[in-house]
Amino acid sequence: MLEVLIYILHGAATSPFVRKAWIFLKEKELEFEHRQLDPLDKSERFLSMNPLGRIPVLEEADGNLISDSSVICDYLENIHPSPSLYPSDNRDRARALWFEEYADTLLTQVCAQVFWMHIIIPIRSGEPTDQTEVDAFRDKNYPGAFDYLEDMAPDGSGIVNNEFGIADISLASAVRLLDLAGAPLDADRWPRFNDYYQRVINRPSAKSIVDEELFATEVFRTTGEAPQYES
Amino acid sequence: MLEVLIYILHGAATSPFVRKAWIFLKEKELEFEHRQLDPLDKSERFLSMNPLGRIPVLEEADGNLISDSSVICDYLENIHPSPSLYPSDNRDRARALWFEEYADTLLTQVCAQVFWMHIIIPIRSGEPTDQTEVDAFRDKNYPGAFDYLEDMAPDGSGIVNNEFGIADISLASAVRLLDLAGAPLDADRWPRFNDYYQRVINRPSAKSIVDEELFATEVFRTTGEAPQYES
Repeated sequence: MLEVLIYILHGAATSPFVRKAWIFLKEKELEFEHRQLDPLDKSERFLSMNPLGRIPVLEEADGNLISDSSVICDYLENIHPSPSLYPSDNRDRARALWFEEYADTLLTQVCAQVFWMHIIIPIRSGEPTDQTEVDAFRDKNYPGAFDYLEDMAPDGSGIVNNEFGIADISLASAVRLLDLAGAPLDADRWPRFNDYYQRVINRPSAKSIVDEELFATEVFRTTGEAPQYES
Repeated sequence: MLEVLIYILHGAATSPFVRKAWIFLKEKELEFEHRQLDPLDKSERFLSMNPLGRIPVLEEADGNLISDSSVICDYLENIHPSPSLYPSDNRDRARALWFEEYADTLLTQVCAQVFWMHIIIPIRSGEPTDQTEVDAFRDKNYPGAFDYLEDMAPDGSGIVNNEFGIADISLASAVRLLDLAGAPLDADRWPRFNDYYQRVINRPSAKSIVDEELFATEVFRTTGEAPQYES
C-alpha cells in the first residue's frame, strides 16, 4: 500500500524543540511543511493542540496532533523505523534518552537564557545587551553544562556508541541557540564538544532549517516577538 | 539462565519521580531496595550518578546507573516487557508519553509548590502556612492543571485506551504530593479525575510506598530538609 505522508510541523524555528523535531524528520527523510506558531500565543486553536501551550506540535495528514518533541520523535521512530535514530541495545538506549533529557532541560535552559539576553531583552527593554551580565551568567552556568559534555564528546557524530541519533540531535538543537544569539560556544574552552557539535550541526538535516532559524531570530530581534502564525 | 535481579532505587520518597519509578518497579513485580538520597545534596558521589543532580537514580546489580524517571521506566519496560505498561498502538503510546510529560512538568510544578507551601516553607521560615497565599495559588493554577484532566479522566484506571500504565502512574505520582501536603484535591470540583486518581493511588503498587512517603514528609516537615542518605 502506498501511503502519502504529509506532516505539518508547527512552531517557531528558534525553538530548540522545533529544531529537534525538524532535524529528526529530515534524518528520517520524511516530507513535511513548516508553520510558524508562537509559543506565547495561547489562542484557543493552539491550546486545543497542546494544553501546555508548548511547541512543537506535529500535525498528521488526518489532523491527528502530537505534542512535545520527545513524544514526536519517539512516535516517528515507531512508525518510520528506518533509518533508526535510537540505539537498539537497551543500555545504549537509556543513555541516549538520558542525553535527550539533559539537552531538553539543563542545556536548553542555559542556552535559551543567552539567546534571551542577546536577542529578546534588548528590543524589549530598549537597552543593548549587558555584556557583564552575560559574562557572569556564562561563568556561573557554562562549566556545569559543558564540562560534562566535553568529557562525553565522541570523535564522530554519535555520543552514544558512536552512532548518530536522538541524543546528538537533541544536544545540537539546544546549543544552536548560542549561534543564533551571536554568541557561539568558546571552542578553546570546550574543543572536543565543539568539534562534535560542529559535525552534527553541519549535517544536511540541520542545515535545512537555517533559513527559517535566521528569519525567526530576526523577527525576534527586531520586534521582541515570535513570528506570527500564518494560517 | 536464572538471573537474580537486584535494583537499588535512590531518592527521597516525597519526590513524584521517585514514586513513579517505585510504582513502576512494583507493577513489574521487580525486587528492589530503596535508599534515601537528598536531591539538594550535590555531593560528588551523587553527582557522579547524575550530573543534573536529580532523583531518582536506579542502580543495577553490576553498578550501572540510570537517571531520570522517564528513562528508568522506558529501560525497565524494555528489559522486563511483561506486564507491559506502555500501549502497543503507536498513537496510544504517543498519548501515554504525552500524559507522562504533562505529569512530569506542569502537574508536578503545581503540586510540588503546594507541598512546599504546606510542609517546607513553614519549618524554614518559622511561620505557619499562609492559607491566603495557598488559596490564591490554587485559584490561579488548579484550573489550568486539572480542568483538562477532568475532561480526560477515564471510568477505569487507564487514561489511555482504558489500559493502566505509564500515564496513570505518572499522573497519580504527581497528585500524591497534595495528599502528603495535607491538602488533597477538591473532589467536588474535579470529581471524575479525583475518582480516577483514587483508583490508581490505591493500587497495591502505590500503597507500598506510603510508609516511606510519610516518613520522608515528616522529616521535611520537622527539619525542612530531606532525609539523609544512609550508605
